[in-house]
Amino acid sequence: MSRRLRLGMVGGGRGAFIGAVHRMAARLDDRYELVAGVFSSDAQRSRDSGADLLLDPRRSYASVDEMVRAESARADRIDVAAIVTPNHLHHVGAKKFLEAGCHVICDKPLTTTVADASDLVSSADRAQRVLAVTYNYSGYPLVRQAKEMIAAGELGELRLVQVEYAQDWLTTALEAAGQKQASWRTDPQQSGVAGSVGDIGTHAFHLAEFVSGLRVAQLAADLSTHVAGRKLDDNAQMLLRFANGARGSLWATQIAPGNENGLRLRIYGAKGGLEWSQEEPNHLRHAPYGQPPRVIARGG
Amino acid sequence: MSRRLRLGMVGGGRGAFIGAVHRMAARLDDRYELVAGVFSSDAQRSRDSGADLLLDPRRSYASVDEMVRAESARADRIDVAAIVTPNHLHHVGAKKFLEAGCHVICDKPLTTTVADASDLVSSADRAQRVLAVTYNYSGYPLVRQAKEMIAAGELGELRLVQVEYAQDWLTTALEAAGQKQASWRTDPQQSGVAGSVGDIGTHAFHLAEFVSGLRVAQLAADLSTHVAGRKLDDNAQMLLRFANGARGSLWATQIAPGNENGLRLRIYGAKGGLEWSQEEPNHLRHAPYGQPPRVIARGG
Amino acid sequence: MSRRLRLGMVGGGRGAFIGAVHRMAARLDDRYELVAGVFSSDAQRSRDSGADLLLDPRRSYASVDEMVRAESARADRIDVAAIVTPNHLHHVGAKKFLEAGCHVICDKPLTTTVADASDLVSSADRAQRVLAVTYNYSGYPLVRQAKEMIAAGELGELRLVQVEYAQDWLTTALEAAGQKQASWRTDPQQSGVAGSVGDIGTHAFHLAEFVSGLRVAQLAADLSTHVAGRKLDDNAQMLLRFANGARGSLWATQIAPGNENGLRLRIYGAKGGLEWSQEEPNHLRHAPYGQPPRVIARGG
Amino acid sequence: MSRRLRLGMVGGGRGAFIGAVHRMAARLDDRYELVAGVFSSDAQRSRDSGADLLLDPRRSYASVDEMVRAESARADRIDVAAIVTPNHLHHVGAKKFLEAGCHVICDKPLTTTVADASDLVSSADRAQRVLAVTYNYSGYPLVRQAKEMIAAGELGELRLVQVEYAQDWLTTALEAAGQKQASWRTDPQQSGVAGSVGDIGTHAFHLAEFVSGLRVAQLAADLSTHVAGRKLDDNAQMLLRFANGARGSLWATQIAPGNENGLRLRIYGAKGGLEWSQEEPNHLRHAPYGQPPRVIARGG
Repeated sequence: MSRRLRLGMVGGGRGAFIGAVHRMAARLDDRYELVAGVFSSDAQRSRDSGADLLLDPRRSYASVDEMVRAESARADRIDVAAIVTPNHLHHVGAKKFLEAGCHVICDKPLTTTVADASDLVSSADRAQRVLAVTYNYSGYPLVRQAKEMIAAGELGELRLVQVEYAQDWLTTALEAAGQKQASWRTDPQQSGVAGSVGDIGTHAFHLAEFVSGLRVAQLAADLSTHVAGRKLDDNAQMLLRFANGARGSLWATQIAPGNENGLRLRIYGAKGGLEWSQEEPNHLRHAPYGQPPRVIARGG
Repeated sequence: MSRRLRLGMVGGGRGAFIGAVHRMAARLDDRYELVAGVFSSDAQRSRDSGADLLLDPRRSYASVDEMVRAESARADRIDVAAIVTPNHLHHVGAKKFLEAGCHVICDKPLTTTVADASDLVSSADRAQRVLAVTYNYSGYPLVRQAKEMIAAGELGELRLVQVEYAQDWLTTALEAAGQKQASWRTDPQQSGVAGSVGDIGTHAFHLAEFVSGLRVAQLAADLSTHVAGRKLDDNAQMLLRFANGARGSLWATQIAPGNENGLRLRIYGAKGGLEWSQEEPNHLRHAPYGQPPRVIARGG
Repeated sequence: MSRRLRLGMVGGGRGAFIGAVHRMAARLDDRYELVAGVFSSDAQRSRDSGADLLLDPRRSYASVDEMVRAESARADRIDVAAIVTPNHLHHVGAKKFLEAGCHVICDKPLTTTVADASDLVSSADRAQRVLAVTYNYSGYPLVRQAKEMIAAGELGELRLVQVEYAQDWLTTALEAAGQKQASWRTDPQQSGVAGSVGDIGTHAFHLAEFVSGLRVAQLAADLSTHVAGRKLDDNAQMLLRFANGARGSLWATQIAPGNENGLRLRIYGAKGGLEWSQEEPNHLRHAPYGQPPRVIARGG
Repeated sequence: MSRRLRLGMVGGGRGAFIGAVHRMAARLDDRYELVAGVFSSDAQRSRDSGADLLLDPRRSYASVDEMVRAESARADRIDVAAIVTPNHLHHVGAKKFLEAGCHVICDKPLTTTVADASDLVSSADRAQRVLAVTYNYSGYPLVRQAKEMIAAGELGELRLVQVEYAQDWLTTALEAAGQKQASWRTDPQQSGVAGSVGDIGTHAFHLAEFVSGLRVAQLAADLSTHVAGRKLDDNAQMLLRFANGARGSLWATQIAPGNENGLRLRIYGAKGGLEWSQEEPNHLRHAPYGQPPRVIARGG
């Protein structure tokens, strides 16, 4: 690496949540330099947010179209765009950057329809660019460790995959109180047709398939809404059948008091089991059948 | 209490499992004195088992019929009979003691069919005797505490009930190796039509209803068998819908390596959540919504 | 075993604490039958307590002298006496029963002076009777497992022994409020010269030596009293040097809020470490050096 | 903040440990830009390390003297120097940068003698510059929370402070095998006169005083060396007496198998207790006396 990648961002201005997380991750990796962005659909707010981040003011844009046009004209144009807007804007933003020859890092869920997702995949293929979705939990060292152990056959043939993602922040009708994150995430127009499933169930589903190496072949789901006036599901339970015959269940909820970010994965095979919890991410419990469980740590 | 209750036992001889647990529980309570039993269908084995227990040799019987007849003729006859045989013998044994005027403590599952269970209930009603099923996990102090907190409204209207019971002892085909417990528990003739559901799912189901005070109104279940040659389910996942609209899931498995006796209950309402695990039974986690979770201990 | 041992008890009447624990343990083991006792120095209270326990009223005595005399005259006299009084009465009671030919189970601490303890040992030797002290924590299956692993050399040469016993029930001056347990335990006349050290430090000390197989050769201690008006230490920290050169520390406290019965032992050698905690007694953490720690469970 | 602070670094080149941690922390904060450094006492290695970090090659220096001279001549000279060398070079490096008008961030322990530390404090005072020591564990949100709760009196008068820092990486003689970190840290010439005490005991000591707000008035220590051939202590136990009468103990060890980075603090007062562990840093256990303990989480 002779230079850092030049990163642009769509979304992530003042008051946003996930954009700042993307920026921290990019800095920690030390492979990116944030140089441009449309941080808000409001031009002044976009400029102010860019100034907070010490960007060149000429590179804080008011729209994706303006950003694509202006960056394309620069010799030091961005290499990659991070799309960190509400869900309904993922498809349009990602597509424009792919077509402009940028790699794209898109927050989850990729899009709000399967058709839109397929369309982005086609765009990325045509453009020969990377289209990455930030299923960030799959990056933990011990999640990678679990995936490798399973691929190496340490659990034997897999039989069971239990995954859950429990939160509590939507236990009350925050959206009715105007809380920004709650408002767009429970709004079908901005969030897409799924609530808890799209917001966090997608993480759980990805993690289960990513670590197990299995694909879900069939599922039965019960989505429910428990807070009065809410327009999308705030809880979902699913029965899973994997292509190899393994069984499992998935639970995603945002109304379980006492759960902050409770993503938990348990996988069992004929020869052993693995258990991992996001809230204690640096340990992985491995139980070879018939032996005492061991706790694998991240190491130094 | 001016004397201890005189306890008889059916099952629980040498090589059995749950009978010894009943006896330990009875001694801890100090309200019972074991005085008689049919400890095995083999007369000699029954006598030997009775001798191990320092019983009067005349009260170690060879059959339920003999025991009922002989005990009925004694002035110091048993007050209560504990039925701790394999499942298929619960109904016949319990019924005979009820009809003889004894109270009955029966291990779970009560019977192998709903009709048999109803018949026992009728017998108990007619005889005006207690018919108890040992859903022993409901006796933990903190399970009682949870039930009382919910009944008092501390969680508000209940929305979610997640219950699971995970074991690993049937990960391999122990029954093929002649292991006694595995053999009868995976044998449809002795165990009844359900495997993991009947053996441990019944505990999970009871605990969920007992603590929540809710009744399951609908369920969707996926029972599966993962060990070659096994005749009954060794894993079950269920979606639950409770009569009040709450949702939940139940998972019972005997093939999850690293889980010894993993009965776990989590209940969430509009005002808070409770979490309890059998493997750390003396603590109950209570999360009032919006406040730090607290850990309630059994106390001195 | 052709019959249960006949057990007598000194102390443990209504309002007492540890006597009931002895009785529960004796029933669980099923090797003892409680038949006699001096449950209180008050004759009526002793009789009432014996009645609670369904004893033959003639065997509820008013004094140790009476009990020794009466029991000695019986064919079915007690085999063993459990001494569960406040500490200052251990020596006199135990001695009389030993001299009468009974085995003795004495609660900890054995006596309040070293001279008295040596005297009891001599009495037991002369009488050829067992003199047992109930360091009950050493009976946990996983404490025994730890001891065996160390004796077998699995940790290599031992280097470090950290032991602690933290409670919180004396955080306030309960003795000033007349609480019975606090009153005698903080009273130099009844408890002996040590407070927290004698009450729980003795458990920690025993556990450390018992499991490690090492003997403490030197120690430096800082005993302190933090509750106004209290006459004995409620906190103690010690530096330990073992005969083999290992180092360690011991902490005993009864004023650490949030600690109910926090007895914890950690032992480290050249080849690995072991950690055990009384509040999660059925697990033992074993860390072979350079490998992931494993959690040994009690088993079925 | 209109620009990032320009950061220089002494130490932290290829093969080093803590320098990379400083750089990650600086990037996460996003208040610093690394622009210069002496990354090694070997000129080529310093240049190569600087190149790895994408620095301007003219600003990778071969010595502190060269760096001070060259940076002082630049308009865009560094604002602050991070000293991340072995301990014996802290004093000389820090002093030169302070005298050149730079702020200094120095890794712990500040120096190897009290006199040198006092000298640096004087230098900083004279230069009117910040001299910071990276007691990084004090920066965790829940450590700050604990400090604030104590300062606000939520625990009442403090009585007990238990702190420990247990590692296992020096269980064997890594230094004899030439492992770089072990070699200098166990070498009295480079590490200073203290081994485990200087390397990690200093963190534990600082954390105890920082959070409690108390000062240690007296201590008794037992330092020991358990690995053959090692020149410095690899284990230390201390009794602590605080100025207000509180008692405590400190344990620092690098030979306790199964402990990776086990920094743990427990503080108890008349009204409650707090417990925090570095290996689960996002939770703080608060036990108000007489109430169930609660677990305070970091929050969103």
